[in-house]
Amino acid sequence: MIHVTTKIERASEQTIQGLGAFSAATIHEAQGRRGALASTIKPIDRDSRFIGSAFTVVCAPRDNLMLQIAIHFAKPGDVLIVGAGGFPEAGMFGDVLGNACKAKGIVALVTDSGVRDTVELRELGLPVFSGSVSIKGTVKETLGYINQPLVFGDETIRPGDIVKGDADGIVIVRREEGDKVIALSQARDESEAGLIEQYKLGRTTIDLCNLSAVLKAKGLTTDLD
Amino acid sequence: MIHVTTKIERASEQTIQGLGAFSAATIHEAQGRRGALASTIKPIDRDSRFIGSAFTVVCAPRDNLMLQIAIHFAKPGDVLIVGAGGFPEAGMFGDVLGNACKAKGIVALVTDSGVRDTVELRELGLPVFSGSVSIKGTVKETLGYINQPLVFGDETIRPGDIVKGDADGIVIVRREEGDKVIALSQARDESEAGLIEQYKLGRTTIDLCNLSAVLKAKGLTTDLD
Amino acid sequence: MIHVTTKIERASEQTIQGLGAFSAATIHEAQGRRGALASTIKPIDRDSRFIGSAFTVVCAPRDNLMLQIAIHFAKPGDVLIVGAGGFPEAGMFGDVLGNACKAKGIVALVTDSGVRDTVELRELGLPVFSGSVSIKGTVKETLGYINQPLVFGDETIRPGDIVKGDADGIVIVRREEGDKVIALSQARDESEAGLIEQYKLGRTTIDLCNLSAVLKAKGLTTDLD
Amino acid sequence: MIHVTTKIERASEQTIQGLGAFSAATIHEAQGRRGALASTIKPIDRDSRFIGSAFTVVCAPRDNLMLQIAIHFAKPGDVLIVGAGGFPEAGMFGDVLGNACKAKGIVALVTDSGVRDTVELRELGLPVFSGSVSIKGTVKETLGYINQPLVFGDETIRPGDIVKGDADGIVIVRREEGDKVIALSQARDESEAGLIEQYKLGRTTIDLCNLSAVLKAKGLTTDLD
Amino acid sequence: MIHVTTKIERASEQTIQGLGAFSAATIHEAQGRRGALASTIKPIDRDSRFIGSAFTVVCAPRDNLMLQIAIHFAKPGDVLIVGAGGFPEAGMFGDVLGNACKAKGIVALVTDSGVRDTVELRELGLPVFSGSVSIKGTVKETLGYINQPLVFGDETIRPGDIVKGDADGIVIVRREEGDKVIALSQARDESEAGLIEQYKLGRTTIDLCNLSAVLKAKGLTTDLD
Amino acid sequence: MIHVTTKIERASEQTIQGLGAFSAATIHEAQGRRGALASTIKPIDRDSRFIGSAFTVVCAPRDNLMLQIAIHFAKPGDVLIVGAGGFPEAGMFGDVLGNACKAKGIVALVTDSGVRDTVELRELGLPVFSGSVSIKGTVKETLGYINQPLVFGDETIRPGDIVKGDADGIVIVRREEGDKVIALSQARDESEAGLIEQYKLGRTTIDLCNLSAVLKAKGLTTDLD
Repeated sequence: MIHVTTKIERASEQTIQGLGAFSAATIHEAQGRRGALASTIKPIDRDSRFIGSAFTVVCAPRDNLMLQIAIHFAKPGDVLIVGAGGFPEAGMFGDVLGNACKAKGIVALVTDSGVRDTVELRELGLPVFSGSVSIKGTVKETLGYINQPLVFGDETIRPGDIVKGDADGIVIVRREEGDKVIALSQARDESEAGLIEQYKLGRTTIDLCNLSAVLKAKGLTTDLD
Repeated sequence: MIHVTTKIERASEQTIQGLGAFSAATIHEAQGRRGALASTIKPIDRDSRFIGSAFTVVCAPRDNLMLQIAIHFAKPGDVLIVGAGGFPEAGMFGDVLGNACKAKGIVALVTDSGVRDTVELRELGLPVFSGSVSIKGTVKETLGYINQPLVFGDETIRPGDIVKGDADGIVIVRREEGDKVIALSQARDESEAGLIEQYKLGRTTIDLCNLSAVLKAKGLTTDLD
Repeated sequence: MIHVTTKIERASEQTIQGLGAFSAATIHEAQGRRGALASTIKPIDRDSRFIGSAFTVVCAPRDNLMLQIAIHFAKPGDVLIVGAGGFPEAGMFGDVLGNACKAKGIVALVTDSGVRDTVELRELGLPVFSGSVSIKGTVKETLGYINQPLVFGDETIRPGDIVKGDADGIVIVRREEGDKVIALSQARDESEAGLIEQYKLGRTTIDLCNLSAVLKAKGLTTDLD
Repeated sequence: MIHVTTKIERASEQTIQGLGAFSAATIHEAQGRRGALASTIKPIDRDSRFIGSAFTVVCAPRDNLMLQIAIHFAKPGDVLIVGAGGFPEAGMFGDVLGNACKAKGIVALVTDSGVRDTVELRELGLPVFSGSVSIKGTVKETLGYINQPLVFGDETIRPGDIVKGDADGIVIVRREEGDKVIALSQARDESEAGLIEQYKLGRTTIDLCNLSAVLKAKGLTTDLD
Repeated sequence: MIHVTTKIERASEQTIQGLGAFSAATIHEAQGRRGALASTIKPIDRDSRFIGSAFTVVCAPRDNLMLQIAIHFAKPGDVLIVGAGGFPEAGMFGDVLGNACKAKGIVALVTDSGVRDTVELRELGLPVFSGSVSIKGTVKETLGYINQPLVFGDETIRPGDIVKGDADGIVIVRREEGDKVIALSQARDESEAGLIEQYKLGRTTIDLCNLSAVLKAKGLTTDLD
Repeated sequence: MIHVTTKIERASEQTIQGLGAFSAATIHEAQGRRGALASTIKPIDRDSRFIGSAFTVVCAPRDNLMLQIAIHFAKPGDVLIVGAGGFPEAGMFGDVLGNACKAKGIVALVTDSGVRDTVELRELGLPVFSGSVSIKGTVKETLGYINQPLVFGDETIRPGDIVKGDADGIVIVRREEGDKVIALSQARDESEAGLIEQYKLGRTTIDLCNLSAVLKAKGLTTDLD
């Protein structure tokens, strides 16, 4: 297997930006409750949000050699997805590489290992999501893979898939499904906005979700019966 | 066992609001170091604080059917306590249901599973405490129980017990002990305020806590002996 | 073994303050990737930073007797390092003892167990790092040790070692190595500043880190070959 | 609250032994999927099995004072349930106390903390279930409670409740429900034996559990449709 | 997406049995360190070993409806791979379904959730690998998916892929790569047998692995230099 | 710092074998409750027991280069203590290296990472203790350190310290304290044997441990008062 694949297909800028208007949770629901990463991958700044194309990287734990190479080859608009065995005790990314990412137009970094220089990274305005924060340094010794499909956060991510992140977490949209998911997300947002209006007017959950028949069929019993 | 019990006894509004003046830690200490929930249940906003009556809900993991029903039957001033097996990879509560809670006068939601739409929930001003944040959706399939006594966060919570939460965590006060605990908490706060004054004046821990005799009895040795 | 050792050697004030100018991550790297504590010890306020001398304390889990004694004997500029078996379900330190620390000139408290009164502690401005936040109280029953070398956060800490903490975590510098580490940290900061400038000018990771030869030797393959 | 309650009500010997004929899983199912402890409490010998009356003990973590007192007051047929905050790094029970238990006729020891001398305990033939195995010793410093209702392993255990354990885990039966649960368990065992016979004859799951109608109602789709 | 896919492609019996001669670790190494599942999936009997075709199942946590359906449709030689969100507190498989599996010729069950009746399952001789052992029962409420590609144990498993398990864990071989991996595994076993012979004759690690040149290039220093 | 130190001081064979007569728990207690490693390091065979001299190794996670070098330089009677950041998802040691260890007279291998080929290792009769079992392979890329003092399992281990392991876990004895600890362990074993005899004769815990006065001083209350 070749170590570095540079030529990957990405969704169109219009599709990517279109998806960026929706929250990660909305997109996850809209595409049929698929694509959400594990809740253990968290933002270092709870106000972070981003959208971009997955540029996948496999590093050895406590080794960021392939991440350095990935920054070299990534394109503006890419999101670095860096799997390193979920090792928490390493800060494989900090403000120096953060500035390198910014200069390249990379829009976010996501790893299942750790990061550091979190104050500087927040000031830099680069969205960073990680499994931990650790000051411990890494080495540059071990070859890995760039732009192979990756199992990460209990999901499969293909290079070029669309990645959306916000305070709640991260969701993956298959590159070729972007436009369909925009439409589904739009519909869901409208439906939810309508529900919120109804709740504010005093309607109730059982009522709005038409749960009465369902509950009767399931045999729900209450002390009002 | 009946699925939904709607008629529960609550403490008086006066008792509940009286307890609301004290921190969760103070109440826990004042009532004899009892009632604190596990530290794994955390606020999504560290400035959150609330007081109310426990309205208990048992859901299946990744299934919020009973939570929807609970919102329907809860009363203003209630705190939803939602046990779902501690499953982290589900966001069983978000901004739509958050608005439904607000409209009903529910004062807080507490779950050992996950929540989502945390930005919107913070803006909404509804205190939310959870075991995780996850964008993953839930189903509405499985019946559970509303207002049965619940083992939650390593404590037993009865419907109608008083629930106090703040940045440090959550404490339960038995419904019938509320007034007694107010008095005890008041006494503790005064004692602690006195201690703080003494510390500021330069008194020391061993001195203020009368530890000298205790330490001598225990056989403490120092390099000053 | 004597319970309380009060006479410990500390680094000079000049050395300690000199080290305070660098981040924990920088110091860790500068001294050869040594001294960083486990990532599970986190600040209660992400803007915290401190530098001081280690004053080590061994408590039984859920027992803060020795911590009380330690506050009595600590000196201005000391950092209390409190090992309590990593027990998460206890708040062994809160605002009363926080005020006692402030009055004594103690600069930070670090524990592998829990703390509480986090709102008040943040207002007090005392940096506090812990393994958990818990409202559960402790007892004062069990003797332990003060100022013995301590295995804490996967590192060995000797009394009088220099302790630096910030948003990313905590690093230990051997008391006798402080001045050497200042020089090394200074060099590293300058080198990193230079790298950041180069990245802003458009240079790339492979280029700046001279990775080409290394990668060739390791046998890196790309789809550009 | 009094520290030691010695007078507790137990189920009859006949009821206890009657329940002993069933597996923990069968009893849990028979009584409506209630009473099972958390899966983190495991036997040190996978061939262990026991039945007895709960004799509950609250210890401080890393402190077995109350356990020593409990062995003194327990009766033949009792099961010691020892809560110690789930602290893993302490071996609060070993072969000396194991022999003391054997001599008293205590039938099993269950703790959410650790035990040691596991080889000798297995030879002794005393069923022991714990959260961990640790050689680390404990102190005898802190008072706790004997025979208060206890939250343990995510369940509430009352003194005198019936406790059944085997390779799969532990289940609690309310003292007053023992005879009812025997009948329900008997029925379940017979039904399961019948199912197994049917499976051996080649019948299938959908068939035997009458799932066809249920699946149709739920909208199951297959590539055979 | 259709719920149940029954028609899947499997490797030939000859290929599957051919792979069965090698250990999971050998296969993993032979195919380039790929395909190993997470170490958290463990056998209930350390002497278990199996080989078969993946028949994948997605259940809701604490719900085994789809597992029941899967047993109906699986073929002799299949291995049930049952993802249920990694929920530990449910025993979704026991001796009744174990007998159903045996009758169908299913060769093993693998789940990231829990199982029970482990004594009976060991007696039955059906290899069972799980994330936990729990007596807690499940419901049959929620539809899921059968024979969709599954992210499980940090790997992607496609229906029909070859699954090998033994005391050390589980490895997946792509259906179409089986014969190639047999050859590679054979070569590796021979090489390892040769190495073991050499070690027995007194040769050493640095010598046999030709590490001297590598270590010199890396700059290894010793107190013998 | 030099990578490989081969010349270390060990305790005498007589001291080491003398300590080998006692259990890990006895030694830990006898030397003042010191030296026990974390309970997360477990034997792959619960009947394992060993005694030897610590030969310490620092590897990068998922990299066993230094372990290979360590086997080359270790002496008969040594115990390899291999720290690799506690990374669970790697099997850094298996039957090939197990045979190499056997041939060299190495008496045990202890790691905080994972091992594999556990069936073969059990047959080989080499005691192996690890943090996990994983089939995932490692690389040989990164230099580390041999025979530097190591923080491992929450203890500090110096090369040449004596290491005792059995079913309950592992304890470290300082090289220079071996003979003293033998005497203390002997005394403790005799005292425990006496206690067990007394328990068998019907004496009770409070009685034998002289707890009555202690309990009275602490203010213990019972329902017999």
